[in-house]
Amino acid sequence: MSITIKEIAELCGVSHGTVDRALNDRPGISLKTKEKILKVAADLNYQPDFLARSLAKGTTKTIGLVLFDLYNRSFSQLTNSIEMESRQREYFVNLLLTDKSFETEKQAIEHLVNRKVDGIILFPINQGADFEQYLKRFNVPIVTICNKLSDYWSYIGIDDRSAMSDAVQYVIDKGYQRIVYICPPLAYHGVSNIYTQEKRLEGLLEGMRLKNFAEEPIIVTDKHYIRALDNIDLKLKRTAIICSCDQYALETMNYLKDKGIRIPDDIGLLGFDNIDVLKYITPKLTTVHYNVEQMGKLAVDVLLEQIDKSAVTSPPLIEYKIIEGESL
Amino acid sequence: MSITIKEIAELCGVSHGTVDRALNDRPGISLKTKEKILKVAADLNYQPDFLARSLAKGTTKTIGLVLFDLYNRSFSQLTNSIEMESRQREYFVNLLLTDKSFETEKQAIEHLVNRKVDGIILFPINQGADFEQYLKRFNVPIVTICNKLSDYWSYIGIDDRSAMSDAVQYVIDKGYQRIVYICPPLAYHGVSNIYTQEKRLEGLLEGMRLKNFAEEPIIVTDKHYIRALDNIDLKLKRTAIICSCDQYALETMNYLKDKGIRIPDDIGLLGFDNIDVLKYITPKLTTVHYNVEQMGKLAVDVLLEQIDKSAVTSPPLIEYKIIEGESL
Repeated sequence: MSITIKEIAELCGVSHGTVDRALNDRPGISLKTKEKILKVAADLNYQPDFLARSLAKGTTKTIGLVLFDLYNRSFSQLTNSIEMESRQREYFVNLLLTDKSFETEKQAIEHLVNRKVDGIILFPINQGADFEQYLKRFNVPIVTICNKLSDYWSYIGIDDRSAMSDAVQYVIDKGYQRIVYICPPLAYHGVSNIYTQEKRLEGLLEGMRLKNFAEEPIIVTDKHYIRALDNIDLKLKRTAIICSCDQYALETMNYLKDKGIRIPDDIGLLGFDNIDVLKYITPKLTTVHYNVEQMGKLAVDVLLEQIDKSAVTSPPLIEYKIIEGESL
Repeated sequence: MSITIKEIAELCGVSHGTVDRALNDRPGISLKTKEKILKVAADLNYQPDFLARSLAKGTTKTIGLVLFDLYNRSFSQLTNSIEMESRQREYFVNLLLTDKSFETEKQAIEHLVNRKVDGIILFPINQGADFEQYLKRFNVPIVTICNKLSDYWSYIGIDDRSAMSDAVQYVIDKGYQRIVYICPPLAYHGVSNIYTQEKRLEGLLEGMRLKNFAEEPIIVTDKHYIRALDNIDLKLKRTAIICSCDQYALETMNYLKDKGIRIPDDIGLLGFDNIDVLKYITPKLTTVHYNVEQMGKLAVDVLLEQIDKSAVTSPPLIEYKIIEGESL
């Protein structure tokens, strides 16, 4: 690795302490000696020993980011904004992906704690009292994002319930007679942390109630949701397919195009997230927007506040709005 | 943070050495005592002090990943595969984005060296002898990806020159009379590392020569390439727009759609990268595919070989192929 203080001292013919004075800008050293030492250090690319310093200071200026994967475009956007904000605040990001595995998530957290990260931003797949007890034992600042654990933890997200309630009311106002709701994660109810998805479902049902919409929704929780669509007579009634995220909506759009089913003439389609690639999609997908960059920035803000001041806060939920496209 | 060995020793009424024996599965301790210690350690969520251990062992089991950003979809896919492969090999990933800034890239590398990462996967924006000399001084294993520095460094990529040569020949065989080539990074020739883009341009010119294609290409290097398209009479001759990456092709497609210019009836369009979101795009974009997941996996492979065996190797370039869409 890089040159040590001891080696600089030998090269300059001075003591270890003198080098230390020069590098840390402390008094008790002549300007000439200091300049000589700094030049040698720069020429030989001296780097301070960060690990040793971390041990002494008890901080690593590193935060851990634990989330599912980067396949869903909104996760990439979130990661990008978290890294950017952390870097601007002089923190580094240790990225760990869990593939939605309970065990991988716990291993990730343990590794981050072992590496003494200053805090963790967690998009959890685990849930429940045991998991929260497990997290508390580490005594490390944690901010949860997208999936909530409980009010004990800082949480960054949107009001998913209200957002989906507003969205379905918007759909109903367009005159649709039947709702197909696509949300495969709901199959994991009671098994894994699907907080966001459960809130969106509550919102869907609430919005329908508020509009006195009597027709029962068809809720698709099959992992192979495209195959499941084959069993629904999509043209029976004026139908809107509501997807709990844009990713499902894009897959559904491909399916409908393949079948020659026109959007929105034959069927309506609604997404959720407003991922950045939607701008390239035809027809333009109607969706629910929230500022995912703001979400990432806020997560870093709140985590650093917790690290610096031990203040566990949950800021207001992030705003959302319906983006009117051409798919409804 | 978590409980220490000293505290476990006090709780169990044994010595520090006895706890150490139990935790590290060494002899010289009764089974009963060992079980007691392990139970206390598990109950109190003991975590070994990784930083101290790293200092002793000289390895952090961490690799640094330095690249531009996660906005281009191919960078997210690459990051996802690098993280996944690293995790499977029990390495952690420190993600650093440079926003294509020379200084940010150097800061990122220095921070990673300070944190004693075992190696770095670098998608460089810097280039030149000075930069290479600078990197060599750190004496840390480095694998370059996508942009090459020189043969001194392990390099993972595709044969960009051949790929673009094949692609333009494919376009010419379709009967196009004029080529517009969109590649804004070329404006940075001699300024920043645009190795990949320079190779692609060489391939473009080579492919045209091989086909005796006399019409001069219109090369757009303006950052505002969409605005630049306004100054070209796209319908003058049977024209194909070749983009040096899918991202530019998608923006161009939006522009053409807005103008009512039909693809491929009025104009041809070719992308490069075959990013995963193309499957949602209509008309289907013709593009050049290479396996970006394989690229990420290979980068980790080669880096770990360098870390473990100090073997600096460059594996064969990754294969590519033209994906026939509906845009030419």
